[in-house]
Amino acid sequence: MKHIYNFAPGPALLPQEVMVKAKEEFLDWNGLGLSVMEVSHRSKEFIELAEMAENNLRMLLKIPNNYKVLFLQGGATLQFAAIPLNIAKPDSVADYLITGSWGKKSAKEAKSYVNVNIVADAENSSYTTVPELKDWKISDNASYFHYTPNETIAGVEITEIPNNINSPIVADMSSTILSRPIDVTKFGLIYAGAQKNIGPSGLTIVIVREDLILNPSSNTPGVINYKLMSENDSMWNTPPTFSWYMAGLVLDWINRKGGLHSIEKSNLLKSNKIYNFIDSSEFYINRVNKNYRSRTNIPFTLLNPELDPLFLMEASEEGLVNLKGHRSVGGMRASIYNAMPVAGVDKLVSFMKKFESKHE
Amino acid sequence: MKHIYNFAPGPALLPQEVMVKAKEEFLDWNGLGLSVMEVSHRSKEFIELAEMAENNLRMLLKIPNNYKVLFLQGGATLQFAAIPLNIAKPDSVADYLITGSWGKKSAKEAKSYVNVNIVADAENSSYTTVPELKDWKISDNASYFHYTPNETIAGVEITEIPNNINSPIVADMSSTILSRPIDVTKFGLIYAGAQKNIGPSGLTIVIVREDLILNPSSNTPGVINYKLMSENDSMWNTPPTFSWYMAGLVLDWINRKGGLHSIEKSNLLKSNKIYNFIDSSEFYINRVNKNYRSRTNIPFTLLNPELDPLFLMEASEEGLVNLKGHRSVGGMRASIYNAMPVAGVDKLVSFMKKFESKHE
Repeated sequence: MKHIYNFAPGPALLPQEVMVKAKEEFLDWNGLGLSVMEVSHRSKEFIELAEMAENNLRMLLKIPNNYKVLFLQGGATLQFAAIPLNIAKPDSVADYLITGSWGKKSAKEAKSYVNVNIVADAENSSYTTVPELKDWKISDNASYFHYTPNETIAGVEITEIPNNINSPIVADMSSTILSRPIDVTKFGLIYAGAQKNIGPSGLTIVIVREDLILNPSSNTPGVINYKLMSENDSMWNTPPTFSWYMAGLVLDWINRKGGLHSIEKSNLLKSNKIYNFIDSSEFYINRVNKNYRSRTNIPFTLLNPELDPLFLMEASEEGLVNLKGHRSVGGMRASIYNAMPVAGVDKLVSFMKKFESKHE
Repeated sequence: MKHIYNFAPGPALLPQEVMVKAKEEFLDWNGLGLSVMEVSHRSKEFIELAEMAENNLRMLLKIPNNYKVLFLQGGATLQFAAIPLNIAKPDSVADYLITGSWGKKSAKEAKSYVNVNIVADAENSSYTTVPELKDWKISDNASYFHYTPNETIAGVEITEIPNNINSPIVADMSSTILSRPIDVTKFGLIYAGAQKNIGPSGLTIVIVREDLILNPSSNTPGVINYKLMSENDSMWNTPPTFSWYMAGLVLDWINRKGGLHSIEKSNLLKSNKIYNFIDSSEFYINRVNKNYRSRTNIPFTLLNPELDPLFLMEASEEGLVNLKGHRSVGGMRASIYNAMPVAGVDKLVSFMKKFESKHE
């Protein structure tokens, strides 16, 4: 069978080695004669799996001991509500920097639980850049500052952690977690839906400084109550065990690849290959400010958008699938998370060259 | 390899045919060259899968058109909060009948969002029976009446739908859904965590009469806002796609087994075999009122509890695993959901006989 390279923004491709191992032990995990999804989350085998996944994540991201790691459900989107419910002080303000659709959605959801101050919103650039620091309207006494380091739809990324913030920094890292080393100590809270760099959809990871979670609002459902979940090792109720297992396999795979420095090198190589080619061509365009181009989600348009359907069809015939851009941006988008091999990017670039030479 | 019969209360065993099919197509679903968990929830292939699962569920349970079916995350436990947030009228009362630990937990969680009236609580029987109807303190004007038809820990089941209720009936059917035909029209809302009769953990199904979900509280997180989720076909955010897929396979399997009448017959056969044997023995005891014995979760104790560890060890050696009772009840518990074959029950009963003959 032809090799398929899946450029979907998420649920995204998973490392092939992980998938092969998961298939192998699908009916008999750990010698139990049962699938891991048929095993109780309270069994010693599953608890060991859960702890190993947490320990691996702690090691890879160098998470200090005063941070809790939670394995939750509901996607990053449920955290849009959970964050203010858990960490906003009563009647306080929370600062939101908006550099794309996800940041906008998170601020909108938060408004039911906290007074939201929009620090800046890049909407008038169609989210192709990040507002200049001097234009950020930071509150004096915010409960926290929220931003989305990488916006998957327009492909905008903030690689430097803002250093002008006087409240705990909260970051939606759904599309960048584990793509490089990060300094966790700079953050109050990091959260991420699993379906890009961690595992299948249905799992959400929250990394939070323990002093921030002591006083959840009384309106916080137990399942998203960080304090309660932390006291119960994320098993106050039945967790999504299979997704947790898959996350564990992905974390092992990252270790085998040499950890996050090595992953970052590969991600830089992949994204540079695509951007360098786009910039060398008059046929393909990426409109994002070069300082803020996403390493993982690369939207591009054709000079002649009438060729879009042909591009997508021919790419798909070559095994390069799910390249269609988000409907709000149009054109194409290549999402190249950790699991995308360099070979997939090479094949994409060579296809783009060939397509250009036929149609320029 | 020895066949393993898994009596876990949940996450529970899944039908062997389903597991074999899921393994077969684990790396290449639907001819796409990708795992189903790597496919976008917005792709036409996944939307087709999602619609088929919903249609199968509607057909099996004869769900009328004025009921919405939602595929959510967070377990039944997140619904403990979601239900009052979505369907309780402002400042109203909700009635809760408590016949076990789950009902108790649901009422406790609801208290943050609605005035909870405990209709009756069977705690003083150690949850071995259901309070008599004449003792139920039903409110005049409740927003809804909540109960847990089957309590997995003490093994108590209410098979008749209460007919003395003047408000919409809400039922936590996590452990009984799809175990028999039910008359959905008698309910305002039915909900169920997947990990017993539907699929892997991480998916929750809600079946709700559409007129009840028009006015969610403004504090309702979007991910558990029934109206919003219903308007977006449960894809307002990324759903747990692999669990949804597995649920679809399980629903197909139920169809192939002949539907819910046939499943019910098999479940009655299985539970009768165990109860009849227990009742014929002086060695094993089940303390639940015979009118309310659970068809799916059968706790039993030994006359001499010192033999419990030996029973569990020897059972496990024969491939009969996860029979340990809940710590709050002690002894043993056999959970025999749809996927437990009659052969597993036969093997359990014959092991119980053998064990008794050695130790009586």
